[in-house]
Amino acid sequence: MRLCRVVGPMWAAVKHPAFSGRTLLVVQPLDEQGADSGASFVAVDTAQAGTGDRVIVLVEGNGARQILRGKDLPIRSVIVGVVDAVDTDQGPVPMARGAS
Amino acid sequence: MRLCRVVGPMWAAVKHPAFSGRTLLVVQPLDEQGADSGASFVAVDTAQAGTGDRVIVLVEGNGARQILRGKDLPIRSVIVGVVDAVDTDQGPVPMARGAS
Amino acid sequence: MRLCRVVGPMWAAVKHPAFSGRTLLVVQPLDEQGADSGASFVAVDTAQAGTGDRVIVLVEGNGARQILRGKDLPIRSVIVGVVDAVDTDQGPVPMARGAS
Amino acid sequence: MRLCRVVGPMWAAVKHPAFSGRTLLVVQPLDEQGADSGASFVAVDTAQAGTGDRVIVLVEGNGARQILRGKDLPIRSVIVGVVDAVDTDQGPVPMARGAS
Amino acid sequence: MRLCRVVGPMWAAVKHPAFSGRTLLVVQPLDEQGADSGASFVAVDTAQAGTGDRVIVLVEGNGARQILRGKDLPIRSVIVGVVDAVDTDQGPVPMARGAS
Repeated sequence: MRLCRVVGPMWAAVKHPAFSGRTLLVVQPLDEQGADSGASFVAVDTAQAGTGDRVIVLVEGNGARQILRGKDLPIRSVIVGVVDAVDTDQGPVPMARGAS
Repeated sequence: MRLCRVVGPMWAAVKHPAFSGRTLLVVQPLDEQGADSGASFVAVDTAQAGTGDRVIVLVEGNGARQILRGKDLPIRSVIVGVVDAVDTDQGPVPMARGAS
Repeated sequence: MRLCRVVGPMWAAVKHPAFSGRTLLVVQPLDEQGADSGASFVAVDTAQAGTGDRVIVLVEGNGARQILRGKDLPIRSVIVGVVDAVDTDQGPVPMARGAS
Repeated sequence: MRLCRVVGPMWAAVKHPAFSGRTLLVVQPLDEQGADSGASFVAVDTAQAGTGDRVIVLVEGNGARQILRGKDLPIRSVIVGVVDAVDTDQGPVPMARGAS
Repeated sequence: MRLCRVVGPMWAAVKHPAFSGRTLLVVQPLDEQGADSGASFVAVDTAQAGTGDRVIVLVEGNGARQILRGKDLPIRSVIVGVVDAVDTDQGPVPMARGAS
């Protein structure tokens, strides 16, 4: 699981029915201070996340299929929660939308 | 899933029948602004994508087998859709072929 | 499996019941000398690890499901142990909390 | 799948019978122009590839087991084909042994 | 599979019975010339490897379970063999313990 920031929605022509009605969001991985860390990728939203939200993204096919309740879904990356804060030994880092 | 640009087709001698009749395309991962990000790789096309198209590429064996409708396919990376645009908090980024 | 340092707990709104009652910790991968190496990520704790502990983190869905004793858990990264030391050809490197 | 160059054979003492009679080759990932890109790794050959050949390497356990026709093989990386060329929007890039 | 050098054993408190009696070794990935390449990680030894040995490490859960002969093992990285040499087009590179 990675801590990510929602960059925004992606508009695309995807014919496979597994994607119909699902929101595709581009997400940017972050480090625990909220700074960008690594390459952005595309995830399916299940947490009503919006642009700028810090989120937890699960990156594994079997787990994604459990979350989305479908055995045959060709989907691997799923946003499972919206993050409020991370406690570090330098103190808490707020992660709510608009923070830092 | 990664946002990628289609670099072009690959010509290769592959004997395994799972690859017969399938188009192999070299794809370059991109960030959400459309800039190159990371190493290129080889994917099977299912979206009639052409050179220069921005595409969504699924990178997982079980998902690829669902998309290609074969239980025993030794294929992991599949192009599942052609991308039109990504909305970011700096505004929309067009992704259609020839854009940016 | 990666050697990591526990950065601290993450507070987040996750609705999926698989996460209820589980502690989410942000972990930072380390090299064998204890220096940071690569991007932090989020893991479920099963070893009562605390902030600053050096831990072994299993990163694989099937293994995580074995450790957590649930067939349908959408969880991939699990802290399985707390590390005391690593022996290298330059001598032992202590890894207990507070060391180096 | 990755485009790679065959660096050469590896000689090693491996007791597990799944490896008996198989050729282990060190391969170097390449970008679509044929330049080195990323870290070398070890693959099992199924395409009679030789040192200097550009090859397609499948990197996934389930796919490898399909190619090698064994359910219980602990092998993940398999060379599945020899590459002739890649077409790019700057024109074709020859990939045959000795090219570029 | 990756070519790695054994850094040394790791001492840790791991309660899960799958790890009892198994040797955990920290390994450093190498390129085909024997130079460090990428981040170290932790593997289970099945080849009686010692500190300084160059080894082949399998990195995949299903393969690890085959090697270790257990269906439910939460272990992903396994040392499967000790490497003697790699042949490259610049000549053979010795890999035995003590060789540069």
